[in-house]
Amino acid sequence: MASSNHLKLLGGWFSPFALRVKIALSIKSLVYEDIEEDTLNSKSQLLLQSNPVHKKIPVLLHGDKPICESRIIVEYIDEVWNSGPSILPSDAYDRAMARFWAAYIDDKLCVAMRHALREEDEQARKAYLEEIEDSLATMEGELQKRCREGKGYFGGEEIGLVDITFGSLLCWVSVLETMNGRKMIVEEKHPCLVKWAERFEFDPNVKGLIPETEKLIEFAKALLMMLKAAAAAK
Amino acid sequence: MASSNHLKLLGGWFSPFALRVKIALSIKSLVYEDIEEDTLNSKSQLLLQSNPVHKKIPVLLHGDKPICESRIIVEYIDEVWNSGPSILPSDAYDRAMARFWAAYIDDKLCVAMRHALREEDEQARKAYLEEIEDSLATMEGELQKRCREGKGYFGGEEIGLVDITFGSLLCWVSVLETMNGRKMIVEEKHPCLVKWAERFEFDPNVKGLIPETEKLIEFAKALLMMLKAAAAAK
Repeated sequence: MASSNHLKLLGGWFSPFALRVKIALSIKSLVYEDIEEDTLNSKSQLLLQSNPVHKKIPVLLHGDKPICESRIIVEYIDEVWNSGPSILPSDAYDRAMARFWAAYIDDKLCVAMRHALREEDEQARKAYLEEIEDSLATMEGELQKRCREGKGYFGGEEIGLVDITFGSLLCWVSVLETMNGRKMIVEEKHPCLVKWAERFEFDPNVKGLIPETEKLIEFAKALLMMLKAAAAAK
Repeated sequence: MASSNHLKLLGGWFSPFALRVKIALSIKSLVYEDIEEDTLNSKSQLLLQSNPVHKKIPVLLHGDKPICESRIIVEYIDEVWNSGPSILPSDAYDRAMARFWAAYIDDKLCVAMRHALREEDEQARKAYLEEIEDSLATMEGELQKRCREGKGYFGGEEIGLVDITFGSLLCWVSVLETMNGRKMIVEEKHPCLVKWAERFEFDPNVKGLIPETEKLIEFAKALLMMLKAAAAAK
């Protein structure tokens, strides 16, 4: 039986969703057991028991209690521990806006990225890449408002929910850029995003946690081959 | 210029998402201006200004501040006003679980319902109806845990986030049942859900807010014809 405060993260080095949880744990200076799930080949009994509905990483185990879904885990960490800066704003309206943009990133950007990665038809893939660029333009517009107020993060002076949700995807944007020979976050169009992305990657709570693009590309290729084989076997 | 506490809801009588906001406002005994958007024909300037990203109802205007996305609005109402019972649990873990199930309802049940409504191919529609039934079985299992603790709602003794999120869809489940001649929430399979649905519909904060199934069916038919015409014009 685990102590009621012991923290275990069921994650994967490649997962932007597990990365969100790692950053939140780092912001709160929390020590945790980092359990690498081999989701490509087989899911552990612990994962299947802890997230029987979605059977997906990440899961945070707080003692015996499993918490699932990355943004819900980040909010939980913020609400339970005050051993570091707040991740969500203290004002209710600002908090609603942070939740709005975090949901936008998952519902629009993230969905388009998943399609762009898996789509084999070039024309269809191009349309998804354009959707990604539309979302990036929207986020640049939002960030420019913060920049005008002299703030470097969506969350203000420090990394917040929107920075974590969006920043965790940057390494996968690089993967798509490399695989498609198309730069998507560029200085001329996204002056604020470019600076923000650099600031984010070198933030003490993020540095060292982001996987290398080359390794992610290898992983992506293996994943795509597996999906193709699974589709062919149907 | 609106007073900073004036509440306006940009909604639609047919919308389960606007219904969620109405129930939350009722729980907190809040008075609001109920603005009916004609989303089938044209969207008001106020809606387009207030929700430029998604251009969708519902939007709650609190003074001049717009809040979008139904679950985010419900959380906002709960955080700002204590003029009625809490909608989210006070314990952080219970809160994370409520958010988990509310997200599940939108990501699984709601998505399958939207597909089932729009799908013309009978085989494909049948598959979506089966997905809906899977989600209903999952929710029945979850509710049975509450029933065993002697509680009538997902939220415990009173209506909470999960009840609002799920309950707002019940009238649209009836629409799908009637349009497809297939009962989906049934006593033998869902003894707890059947009782919960009755309790929900007659709750003082819900009664009178749920649209009639017959009117919704007419609306659904008009919507489907419009979507078909729009697709044909492409």
